[in-house]
Amino acid sequence: MNSRDFGTLLKALWQQKKFLCVGLDPVLETLPPSVRTGDTRTTLVTFNRAIVDATKDVVCAYKPNSAFYEEHGDEGLMALRETIFYIKEKAPDVPIILDAKRADIGNTSAAYARAVFDHLDVEAVTVSPYLGRDAIQPFLDRKDKGVIVLCRTSNPGAGALQDLEINGKPLFMHVARLVSDWNEHGNCGLVVGATTPEELAQVRSAAGAMPILIPGVGAQGGDLEASVQAGKDSHGTGFIISVSRSVIAASNGDDFAEAARAQAEALHSSIIKIL
Amino acid sequence: MNSRDFGTLLKALWQQKKFLCVGLDPVLETLPPSVRTGDTRTTLVTFNRAIVDATKDVVCAYKPNSAFYEEHGDEGLMALRETIFYIKEKAPDVPIILDAKRADIGNTSAAYARAVFDHLDVEAVTVSPYLGRDAIQPFLDRKDKGVIVLCRTSNPGAGALQDLEINGKPLFMHVARLVSDWNEHGNCGLVVGATTPEELAQVRSAAGAMPILIPGVGAQGGDLEASVQAGKDSHGTGFIISVSRSVIAASNGDDFAEAARAQAEALHSSIIKIL
Repeated sequence: MNSRDFGTLLKALWQQKKFLCVGLDPVLETLPPSVRTGDTRTTLVTFNRAIVDATKDVVCAYKPNSAFYEEHGDEGLMALRETIFYIKEKAPDVPIILDAKRADIGNTSAAYARAVFDHLDVEAVTVSPYLGRDAIQPFLDRKDKGVIVLCRTSNPGAGALQDLEINGKPLFMHVARLVSDWNEHGNCGLVVGATTPEELAQVRSAAGAMPILIPGVGAQGGDLEASVQAGKDSHGTGFIISVSRSVIAASNGDDFAEAARAQAEALHSSIIKIL
Repeated sequence: MNSRDFGTLLKALWQQKKFLCVGLDPVLETLPPSVRTGDTRTTLVTFNRAIVDATKDVVCAYKPNSAFYEEHGDEGLMALRETIFYIKEKAPDVPIILDAKRADIGNTSAAYARAVFDHLDVEAVTVSPYLGRDAIQPFLDRKDKGVIVLCRTSNPGAGALQDLEINGKPLFMHVARLVSDWNEHGNCGLVVGATTPEELAQVRSAAGAMPILIPGVGAQGGDLEASVQAGKDSHGTGFIISVSRSVIAASNGDDFAEAARAQAEALHSSIIKIL
């Protein structure tokens, strides 16, 4: 077992009643002036470091979204890698989920798996189910890594495909069932948005103890209490409440880290109270 | 209209009876020894340049797959960008499709659109439909850019989701219909694998004149004639036959460029004969 095995790290933090994941999705032009003093790479890393320092004792994961780094090319990619290094140094017990929503056919998927698990060296990744199992098999084969599959997403248009009814059940429930089958190594999880707590409860009933990553609380309007109640497993654990803007953009002034800390702590306390 | 408007470039090449797309998916450790003399970046660029030089007069597009560059980090990303620059310089009439299968919620999707259309500056991108329309809207909004949506893919496990039946029709046909609705700017296309010519014919019947990108001929076993017959529109055009390994890995010796040329030319001639 790897010292940074995703499931092991996550469960240890859940036992400490930590269920919050902070999305590290910095939007360059909206960052506080105090961090925008150097080049793009330095700015992104400086910001992320401050957020990590301010929140690392109340989170169960960090989730950088690849898009916010890719848009800055080499500098963005270097910032992403430096952020990952920093988390491993300062918060070695906190797993990193790369939000990348990848999936591709055979040898291409293997290249993506190397990109995220070897080059970037994160503990988990989000993937898309649309291409079927073989398109994510190279991810699934990495037993110590988490593979978190999109199931019911939090965006307004998600239902166009995900709610289509097949044999009396929506597509996303078929995805939940398929991923249960794909979960031979026990390293799968599901993404279900907080914006649809009823769907979240349905997925939980089919997902057993599989971890569910729940984005959409806060800026997207999802309700925290409903999400925790619908998303927890039979042991009152098994879920990850993922927030980004409501924490990292809590203030755009020089007090951004303190404001992020206050928001993260408030969410952390609220989750414990709900449980 | 942009001088590298995707649809305009593509149609001009179709009029010249060019329907072949070469996938620039170099697998570093299998590249010919003669190009593996420098660092990763130089090796990838040297290889791609030779392939472009050898094939540029018989293709309607180039399609680098992002995974094969991402796995090499900064060096890979630089190689991808240099490859794109090179194509624009040496083959300015040939559009570039970044095979990235992206899609994400709102502001994240906008960051991906900037990454591929501004930072990498390609003419088209492949995207996933699973999250619905708003997840690809920032791509759709770029009227001069092509947005090619996964519909029925060529991999063995594709049917697990894509063939699920909804109101008597498989999911991929619902995707084809949805994308027709999303195609307000006339800049959408569909990906349908050559491995299932019957499904390809079904999609064509629903897709009108939308371009269909057809991977899977060659290494994956798809039949060229069946694919052309099933994929062409009512004017005998509208399709892109995408090949990668069978052209770029036609030889792993010092004659790799000549071998790639011979394969590409043979495919190009075969397509014209079939039409």
